[in-house]
Amino acid sequence: MPETYEVGLLGHGTVGSAFAELLSDRAPQIETITGLRPRISGVLTRSRGDFDEILAASDLIVEVMGGVDPARDYVLRALRAGKHVVTANKQLLAQHGEELWAAAREHQVQLRFEAAVGGVVPVIRVVQETLAAAHIDRVTGIVNGTTNFILSEMARTGQSYEEALAEAQRLGYAEADPTADVSGADAAAKMAILARLAFDTPVHLDQVVYEGIEQITPDDLEYAREFGLGLKLIGTAERIDGGLSVRVHPAFLYGGHPLASVNGPFNAVTIESPAITEITLSGPGAGGPQTASAVLGDVISAMIPPASTPETSQSLPIVKDVESAFYLHLEVDDEPGVLARVAAALGEQGVSVKSVVQKGMGAQARLVMVLHRAPEQRFLAAVDQIGGLEFMRSRPRFIRVVEEEYGV
Amino acid sequence: MPETYEVGLLGHGTVGSAFAELLSDRAPQIETITGLRPRISGVLTRSRGDFDEILAASDLIVEVMGGVDPARDYVLRALRAGKHVVTANKQLLAQHGEELWAAAREHQVQLRFEAAVGGVVPVIRVVQETLAAAHIDRVTGIVNGTTNFILSEMARTGQSYEEALAEAQRLGYAEADPTADVSGADAAAKMAILARLAFDTPVHLDQVVYEGIEQITPDDLEYAREFGLGLKLIGTAERIDGGLSVRVHPAFLYGGHPLASVNGPFNAVTIESPAITEITLSGPGAGGPQTASAVLGDVISAMIPPASTPETSQSLPIVKDVESAFYLHLEVDDEPGVLARVAAALGEQGVSVKSVVQKGMGAQARLVMVLHRAPEQRFLAAVDQIGGLEFMRSRPRFIRVVEEEYGV
Repeated sequence: MPETYEVGLLGHGTVGSAFAELLSDRAPQIETITGLRPRISGVLTRSRGDFDEILAASDLIVEVMGGVDPARDYVLRALRAGKHVVTANKQLLAQHGEELWAAAREHQVQLRFEAAVGGVVPVIRVVQETLAAAHIDRVTGIVNGTTNFILSEMARTGQSYEEALAEAQRLGYAEADPTADVSGADAAAKMAILARLAFDTPVHLDQVVYEGIEQITPDDLEYAREFGLGLKLIGTAERIDGGLSVRVHPAFLYGGHPLASVNGPFNAVTIESPAITEITLSGPGAGGPQTASAVLGDVISAMIPPASTPETSQSLPIVKDVESAFYLHLEVDDEPGVLARVAAALGEQGVSVKSVVQKGMGAQARLVMVLHRAPEQRFLAAVDQIGGLEFMRSRPRFIRVVEEEYGV
Repeated sequence: MPETYEVGLLGHGTVGSAFAELLSDRAPQIETITGLRPRISGVLTRSRGDFDEILAASDLIVEVMGGVDPARDYVLRALRAGKHVVTANKQLLAQHGEELWAAAREHQVQLRFEAAVGGVVPVIRVVQETLAAAHIDRVTGIVNGTTNFILSEMARTGQSYEEALAEAQRLGYAEADPTADVSGADAAAKMAILARLAFDTPVHLDQVVYEGIEQITPDDLEYAREFGLGLKLIGTAERIDGGLSVRVHPAFLYGGHPLASVNGPFNAVTIESPAITEITLSGPGAGGPQTASAVLGDVISAMIPPASTPETSQSLPIVKDVESAFYLHLEVDDEPGVLARVAAALGEQGVSVKSVVQKGMGAQARLVMVLHRAPEQRFLAAVDQIGGLEFMRSRPRFIRVVEEEYGV
């Protein structure tokens, strides 16, 4: 039997239950990496479990209950008892972070909180580790997926704020009481935490100025398009004249801005520093499984710092024949029946046409097509056959097309 | 005197000299974080330095000499001597990674290599730590900044491949002999390393199929625009039928793909996993200072795993008045002189107009402007004055505009 690593779970809502499931699912893999098999030592909810018993039985505490009380008391007691803590609680850290970080330092345990900021986007790790000694000038973020979804919908459909909010609620991207999200308060807490880490200075939630998106109209978005701008709820933390400004407000972004193309319920953060120019990280904003995954990453890091690359535990075969969609470019004689014969050659190999543009140029024509996905070998066989047709003026040219398979 | 941490430097080209400068510049900050003051124990170049002497004098070796020989021998000897190694050498890892990782495990030292893949984009850390136990389905990346610059220029200007390559060489984004970049070989080495880590299976450079961008024509990019596609050199590593496919080729991306909007000499990697949906990381592809910064992040991580959030070392004042550009939306009576008086009120406060749209609607008109950056207090004073003008039909509305300050 491997040694176990006992994880006490505080909170069993959407994130807590997703975490418990993920931990059990990934336990064998975690054992390969760390040499320890993690398991849930106990679960505390409003109606069941005893905190002291769970604490005594655990190597590490995961706090996903939310809210300041009693989470603050539990986290402090865990740190003082010498247990590592992983939390997803942004309000707790934005209001009482210094007290908790000091307790962690004093008792030489880890307090990790990737899931508190930026959804699955690993911005805490990048700021604390990759950029540990970098001089950061500015952090700009879309750190609330609900408001980004609402603004994206208003831009895409011309809906009013109220309509887009209702749609967000229907899809589960906004809560029944959306105030914390749409007022900017949630984003403000996240920016307070990010600013503390990026600028190595205490930042309390009360010091963050914020505005929400309730006043945005479809008109604003229509004019934005005319000016070539995109509208987002933007959190900014930046050095100004030897001081620091931390704020959240709706803002228009020029098209070339790295956050301008972040649409739907996504989060993204851009970090600017002279040494690196900028890094942008983006991913889904929230959701139980995603947050649980961020919590699990922190748990594994607390279990054992990945000082070395583990030996591979398998040897997958390398596959050479894959499926692709293709762009196909043909120079042909401009005569009847050409398109039909090209399409027939493709059809014989099971390759179907998605779109086609044909341009006549005197005796010659150019036929450009985008094809649906098919096994590459079958596509190449069709191209071979097409290349031999008597109306071809030059060798067929083709380039792969990556189809959109993403959520947004 | 603080205890020192001795860093031996192999290679003193663009990256090596930038690293030495950065290390000296950031040494006080690193001492705050780690308690140790790092310094260069010795430098090995083709013409000076002795490897054995440097090794004996160092706690950690930074290898930025490039190439397989003699880098492989030096790195192996350092690991076997019980020294941590940080390397930016993709060819070395893509061809001899398993041997080196095994040596690091055997001698219980760290081998870190963030700078070998993805420029400043911290993809290695995210795959190895944040996603340590995640089941990754696919990694898609733009991992060569030179080719992404060339393709972006071809798309933007209609230039030929040869013209865009010459431009890249002029700007220092491409080398005099660009073969390794434009053939896809550089990207293939990076994808081999990424695939090894993401899929926990040995992957050698020889197993990566690759094509370059030499055959791309301006025509392809023009048709791409018609089809709503963007053209990139894409590295893909994905699970297929229980096996693994790793390949690099030019590919068209649909507009909504997270890599479609990555332009210029940038790198970006998208990682897909059921638990997180997807994460995209992007940043500048290369350059001496950027690579040096990635190396330094690894050096600090090797010095001490950041188990806890350090105490803040300063307390920056929180600044409330900042500069912003604004979008200003006014409902006014449609009468002569309105625009002039609005512009005058702005001008008195030093706020200048960048663009303006005026639309008549019967007796009423709508005046929408984008203004240049100005201190917010001055802009707000102008808005107060405008709000009191007799031709105003409703309260002025305004939203901040984030101006493009990025390199691309």
